[in-house]
Amino acid sequence: MDADCVLCKKLSTMSEIDVVWRFPHGIAVLGPWQYYHGYCMLIANSHATELSQLPDAARRAHFDEMCMLAHAIEKCFRPHKLNYELLGNQVPHLHWHLFPRYMEDPDRLQPVWLALDRAERDPELKRRLETGPTERAVTVAALQNQLKNINAVRA
Amino acid sequence: MDADCVLCKKLSTMSEIDVVWRFPHGIAVLGPWQYYHGYCMLIANSHATELSQLPDAARRAHFDEMCMLAHAIEKCFRPHKLNYELLGNQVPHLHWHLFPRYMEDPDRLQPVWLALDRAERDPELKRRLETGPTERAVTVAALQNQLKNINAVRA
Repeated sequence: MDADCVLCKKLSTMSEIDVVWRFPHGIAVLGPWQYYHGYCMLIANSHATELSQLPDAARRAHFDEMCMLAHAIEKCFRPHKLNYELLGNQVPHLHWHLFPRYMEDPDRLQPVWLALDRAERDPELKRRLETGPTERAVTVAALQNQLKNINAVRA
Repeated sequence: MDADCVLCKKLSTMSEIDVVWRFPHGIAVLGPWQYYHGYCMLIANSHATELSQLPDAARRAHFDEMCMLAHAIEKCFRPHKLNYELLGNQVPHLHWHLFPRYMEDPDRLQPVWLALDRAERDPELKRRLETGPTERAVTVAALQNQLKNINAVRA
């Protein structure tokens, strides 16, 4: 834990409401932009700022967890495409953004960040991008059911 | 190979100039935006549109290759941060963008796509973002030397 890291603090005070799954090496939480229905972040448990700081085995386990989460999103919501992004420019603690993209999104050929940037100056767009087709709790429950199935098959 | 896929065609007609490394499962090429010095794309050899389409072993090997390339970029150019992005919204054939970020970039807290979007309407910015601190061939050679070292250690 790094006392100055926003995500380290968040991990220790996480509300269970948005927790999708606790993996051995990270925690999946439902992200704020549910126009991208099923958008999750996977936050590494340990404070590392780059993948190269993880030992090989831990990094591979981290990828396996990311792929399990991605698989659950695909099975639940059948997106047209899945976008994976590990940036950390503002918060340098390893966390992946998994953004499902859908055919009805007029901006589906662009990275989500262009629309999210516009949303900072447009409260109506912001509200629209925050709103999914179902309540957040319903989305979380669907992902959890899927992850239970995936884990049952792997166990 | 998918006859309609831009990247499948590119793989079969690739100019060697920008090839950084041929891995068993993918090919690393130097990307166009060398303001992000060392920016590479890692293109999967096989035509898959989502990570979940790869068998587990191939997907893990693909990640290992990506991490080897990332490590070479970090060792060569010491970026402040490394951004990993697998999108495929326009070209749905698995390819990673590895964007090194530097302290002197005034937009370093943002994803690169905001600046790249502005560059589409601003030829001067486009030219600036395409230009690295060294010739492209010098950048490629530095990465190749580093990858030779990394492979020698692993062999």
